[in-house]
Amino acid sequence: MQFSNSACESMAVCEKGTSPVAFALSGQEWESFFTPGDRLTLLERFPTAVILPEKISGPDLVERINASGCRVLVGGWSLPPLPTDRAVFPGLEYVGYLAGGIRRKIPRSLLEQGLLVSNWGNSIARIVAECGLLLLLMCYREASHWQIRMHQKGAFKSRCEKGNLSLFQRRIGIHGFGAVAQALTDLLRPFHVEIAAYSPWPDDAVFAAKGVRRFASLEQLFEWSDAVVEAEACSPQTIRSVKELHLRLLGDGVFVNIARAELVEEDALIRVAREGRLKLGLDVYHQEPLPADYPLCGLPNVALLPHLGGPTWDRRVDAGALALKNISRFLEGRPVEFPISLEQYDRMT
Amino acid sequence: MQFSNSACESMAVCEKGTSPVAFALSGQEWESFFTPGDRLTLLERFPTAVILPEKISGPDLVERINASGCRVLVGGWSLPPLPTDRAVFPGLEYVGYLAGGIRRKIPRSLLEQGLLVSNWGNSIARIVAECGLLLLLMCYREASHWQIRMHQKGAFKSRCEKGNLSLFQRRIGIHGFGAVAQALTDLLRPFHVEIAAYSPWPDDAVFAAKGVRRFASLEQLFEWSDAVVEAEACSPQTIRSVKELHLRLLGDGVFVNIARAELVEEDALIRVAREGRLKLGLDVYHQEPLPADYPLCGLPNVALLPHLGGPTWDRRVDAGALALKNISRFLEGRPVEFPISLEQYDRMT
Repeated sequence: MQFSNSACESMAVCEKGTSPVAFALSGQEWESFFTPGDRLTLLERFPTAVILPEKISGPDLVERINASGCRVLVGGWSLPPLPTDRAVFPGLEYVGYLAGGIRRKIPRSLLEQGLLVSNWGNSIARIVAECGLLLLLMCYREASHWQIRMHQKGAFKSRCEKGNLSLFQRRIGIHGFGAVAQALTDLLRPFHVEIAAYSPWPDDAVFAAKGVRRFASLEQLFEWSDAVVEAEACSPQTIRSVKELHLRLLGDGVFVNIARAELVEEDALIRVAREGRLKLGLDVYHQEPLPADYPLCGLPNVALLPHLGGPTWDRRVDAGALALKNISRFLEGRPVEFPISLEQYDRMT
Repeated sequence: MQFSNSACESMAVCEKGTSPVAFALSGQEWESFFTPGDRLTLLERFPTAVILPEKISGPDLVERINASGCRVLVGGWSLPPLPTDRAVFPGLEYVGYLAGGIRRKIPRSLLEQGLLVSNWGNSIARIVAECGLLLLLMCYREASHWQIRMHQKGAFKSRCEKGNLSLFQRRIGIHGFGAVAQALTDLLRPFHVEIAAYSPWPDDAVFAAKGVRRFASLEQLFEWSDAVVEAEACSPQTIRSVKELHLRLLGDGVFVNIARAELVEEDALIRVAREGRLKLGLDVYHQEPLPADYPLCGLPNVALLPHLGGPTWDRRVDAGALALKNISRFLEGRPVEFPISLEQYDRMT
């Protein structure tokens, strides 16, 4: 089996023999999700692993899956959408998806028919949290505005720079308390902040384990906080839950969104941002890529990142390591980590 | 005694009676360095404290010091330069300086003649370290470039964003191992980084206490590190110690300077930065404010901050709390914290 050594090239294709595992990955996915050591491990453990062509059609994929007799399919962003009826590949039991959202790849009906599917689960949570910390710090130091002022206008700070603030000892509120929010609390601890969160779903014990105060409403969270980080899952219960009244409760504080734009009422966000008091750090948007006339472009109180809150290039290997572990677990008859339930499926964007 | 309630206004002046303590502070310094609670404490404990006019001349200052009979003078950036001969204010024993560098305010001869002087010492170290973490994260996520691309050009990330990297699990080198470097290690810990440092002066125990690997040379530090943070004190032994060979050892890594520009050979920094591989995060410059033709402006691999690595507006109170503690210690006959030795004086910029 031959693999290219440079990313973004196609993988060679091996169609010989049968294998319990098949990979449907682009060359870039293979090389960025797996370390050289993990790749070696995979090839040693599954010497007959079937590597499917990068731009394979759905029907071809089904044919190759059946020809290989694989029980496990490992796929990433380049996976074509699977058919709706599990009967077309009766031997396939488990799809280990390397990335996050599976709705455009794997029809709900396959899960209903018992196909086991997992994704990158919590393996990327700390990297998303890192993006949240960056946006918090950028907002407090007005770093977005300084990039433009210094790079283009030769500006420098004045004697009395009241916009230059610190994260230390602040009250940080988090909307949501899943894996990203929990990872964020770890990054925030050395700043001697107080942390509170609002999310109706997790058990009290989850908050207690992280030493995080739990509020009973979003209003209370926004009222108490100097800065709020949006890290809730988007669902019918949470969509557009952050409204103008919440943003106004922050006054001249900070609001960071590393979750989903749809959690926030867009008109309210734009209205409040334009007034210039609230500092905003955004990684997610109602339309991505940004439309040319995005109304927050050019505002000095807004830090923008282009949806970097996923695994960075160098940390895709964390998702790869999870996939490797899950393949072993599955083949040994043990439960895989982060299996996707129908409930989770429905909450995915 | 009356004080204005808004910052940046002059303080009222009280010249009645004598006092062990005199304050020579602008209204802004008084209100930004001391919390409302600390101000109340000061006024209750020193009801006859002498508040000197904001724009007082050197000779007037001496006269008021003598008239008040104060033993302690608390000053900040607005303090006029003191005379060189301590005999002109024989009763003054201690100057508690609220800010950092004292060379332009307090002649060396006063220290030689036994005047005790302290400054903000380590009270601001964590805030400078915070600035270092921000620049590290900005470099790894190319946040500087994204601000300009997104705010002005409506750009968004491509599918294969190899420049979007994480700080997690990297090797971070620190040049210097004083208070700022040590505070930085605390902020870096949750990122599961390995940390090493080079500085010939601190005892091994200081490195060991922070779990930091100690290197014997700057070359070794730069060779080992993915990113290096410059946090060394500037002195004849360290000036221009970071040369082209060191920067090149970082390859396409990250170099952050939150200490002094003079630690780095400027020509080398500019040459390496212009090649575009090394990511740079700078808070300090050879000329401040930046000259109009500063050669690093416009480079996408360079994040710029305008010397924000001092106390932020909201954390000046940490330096104020230290001053308050030091006044008490001095009047109780105990040693003050962060007294400035002649050796430290000579190393100040």
